[in-house]
Amino acid sequence: MAKLAIAEKVATDMKSASWIREMFEKGLRMKAEFGAENVHDFSLGNPNGAPPEAFFEAVRAVADERRPDLHRYMPNVGFDETRAAVAKFISGEYRLEFDAGAVILTTGAAGGMNVVMRTVCDPGDEVIVLAPFFPEYRFYIEQAGGKMVLVQTDEHFQPDLDAIEAAITTRTRAIIVNTPNNPSGAVFTEDKCRGLAEVLKRHDRDEQPIYLATDDPYRRIIFNHDWCPTPVKHYPRSLIVSSYSKDLSIAGERAGYIAVPPAVPNREMILGAMTMLNRTLGYVNMPAFMQRVVARCAEALCDVGFYRQNRDLLCNALLEYGYDLNIPGGALYAFPKTPIDDDVEFVDILMKYKILAVPGRGFGRPGHMRVSYCVERETIERALPGFKAAIKELR
Amino acid sequence: MAKLAIAEKVATDMKSASWIREMFEKGLRMKAEFGAENVHDFSLGNPNGAPPEAFFEAVRAVADERRPDLHRYMPNVGFDETRAAVAKFISGEYRLEFDAGAVILTTGAAGGMNVVMRTVCDPGDEVIVLAPFFPEYRFYIEQAGGKMVLVQTDEHFQPDLDAIEAAITTRTRAIIVNTPNNPSGAVFTEDKCRGLAEVLKRHDRDEQPIYLATDDPYRRIIFNHDWCPTPVKHYPRSLIVSSYSKDLSIAGERAGYIAVPPAVPNREMILGAMTMLNRTLGYVNMPAFMQRVVARCAEALCDVGFYRQNRDLLCNALLEYGYDLNIPGGALYAFPKTPIDDDVEFVDILMKYKILAVPGRGFGRPGHMRVSYCVERETIERALPGFKAAIKELR
Repeated sequence: MAKLAIAEKVATDMKSASWIREMFEKGLRMKAEFGAENVHDFSLGNPNGAPPEAFFEAVRAVADERRPDLHRYMPNVGFDETRAAVAKFISGEYRLEFDAGAVILTTGAAGGMNVVMRTVCDPGDEVIVLAPFFPEYRFYIEQAGGKMVLVQTDEHFQPDLDAIEAAITTRTRAIIVNTPNNPSGAVFTEDKCRGLAEVLKRHDRDEQPIYLATDDPYRRIIFNHDWCPTPVKHYPRSLIVSSYSKDLSIAGERAGYIAVPPAVPNREMILGAMTMLNRTLGYVNMPAFMQRVVARCAEALCDVGFYRQNRDLLCNALLEYGYDLNIPGGALYAFPKTPIDDDVEFVDILMKYKILAVPGRGFGRPGHMRVSYCVERETIERALPGFKAAIKELR
Repeated sequence: MAKLAIAEKVATDMKSASWIREMFEKGLRMKAEFGAENVHDFSLGNPNGAPPEAFFEAVRAVADERRPDLHRYMPNVGFDETRAAVAKFISGEYRLEFDAGAVILTTGAAGGMNVVMRTVCDPGDEVIVLAPFFPEYRFYIEQAGGKMVLVQTDEHFQPDLDAIEAAITTRTRAIIVNTPNNPSGAVFTEDKCRGLAEVLKRHDRDEQPIYLATDDPYRRIIFNHDWCPTPVKHYPRSLIVSSYSKDLSIAGERAGYIAVPPAVPNREMILGAMTMLNRTLGYVNMPAFMQRVVARCAEALCDVGFYRQNRDLLCNALLEYGYDLNIPGGALYAFPKTPIDDDVEFVDILMKYKILAVPGRGFGRPGHMRVSYCVERETIERALPGFKAAIKELR
């Protein structure tokens, strides 16, 4: 049988539309033609707030140590001091008691979620994902041999508990929950978090476990609450995946972690499996230098007010212009309805005004678009007339 | 069907003996009982030389920049300046012309090799590995859906070209070559490198390609040569995987790369697939901070003389005591025959003298043991009487 130069599955994945990627490439062409400063790029989820001062101080302090042994392999789960610092931080953040042994440091939340999917999925097992959703989840699930089962959220992007319950089968092994949500910006309510836990409890059994895997890097990027509700509080078989990418504005540093709450059944077996997989999947460990840095600033937080101001500027204007929009409660994205059903066509209209957004179908929710507001304030200000004109030309 | 708390494949892998892991745990128990300073641990491959001064200077310089944008996502392949610096370095090292576009920065060689295996393996494809071998390869291959086919090297741990040719089938998709070798310390000769390329060329076809994937982090840790021979020079369909873990003594920092030589057929398709997989497999990018560091010291090298002195001290003594040993030409390991056929039994005898080594069967070559000499010189000095007594008690 004749072979391609690359594996067939990979060739297929390359052909399937990645809308974020497509917008990125269209953006590059536009920037080459019109100049980068004249293109208003809302297509990327790259946190652009400044890292907090505590982060820079920690980097400097670790650099000053000049310790020859600082950069070697450590146990694959990470340095004890960093695990302890993360455990202390998340004990407050989740209002649950974590010790250092509950924490496995990973190469970003992406590495962590891959480890979790590999830990729980046998071939053909199903993982429920709530749409709209971060499109990389499909890869993480399929690379682990699993199958993604999409369930739509309601019109406010809140979990539809009946739809979730209807999607559960004997092959359901996990559900991924991401609140605050990329791309919708929705913060799941406390009632929905409790309700979701109740649904899962009705079907979870020791001989047919269903894991709740939370993808929580946006937990502290919230605008209307003091604290982000979480189903982890209400459901024992929970596995937390998160990172410092957004808290510290260091997405390029791959500083993530998995936390296994005390109540999880078979906890030691799960921790052992994850420790092995962190190594055998080739992540090995969170980068040593950043581990030492995180140990010194594990509770620091970037200026969330910067993102709140961007949200207010963008979303108030979009509402005024007539866009149909749920005001995002957290994360870095607005997810308005497109004024016409065809989201790809509307995103093309926006491009006439040199505005880049991502069609909602890239996130499993056509008829919407993702507008990232982790941009300079000036980018929003310059783009607003274009957003206004684009909806006006359709009226 | 009743399920385990974790995936069955993972549970199986956890049960299969990892001898490095087993020795690590036995070592922990011994150290708890006798005190760490009284246990002579030769079981780990953790480069312990000091990083070169250029590395510390680069860390300090990058820390001093305090740039808010330094730590964000960049293109998944890495910063242009770092790719260019690596390309310049490897152009000299491999005596081939590489430009920045040939280099994809990865989270260590482990991340890089996983990306390569995923790029080339369809389910059921075969990957030839030369024993003795680094046992993680099996995971990398199987996680990509492939099947590992082991081929023994000769008594000097040089490639057995006839055996390799006999192992090639229509499903052979790649061969992994690691020289200098972990665990044998062998440096493949120029003749063997040429010969291997000839064998592969006889079977490689565009519609049934066979990739040569080199795992090259030890290339510059060599003691008898100015330059390490490589089959990459002689075989067009080569993919280089390497890292700065050994050159800079920074194994914990996950600073690796893939390089795709200019002559590789379908080069753009392969680079595109690898770029996507670096992201979708959850590595995303080499940590940003270390990218900036590597850009400043991409040609720096630790003190190889430190390892050479350790090799000489250890290997000369082992020969004198009567061990049967190929003097390692590179890397960080000696791989003597065990004086009795049962390598596990002999490793247990060494433990009576508080010496930890790893049985050869953990690397696919029973009747040997791996003795890592990336340790303090004093560790070797204190252990020598034990090595002497252990072989003596068998005579």
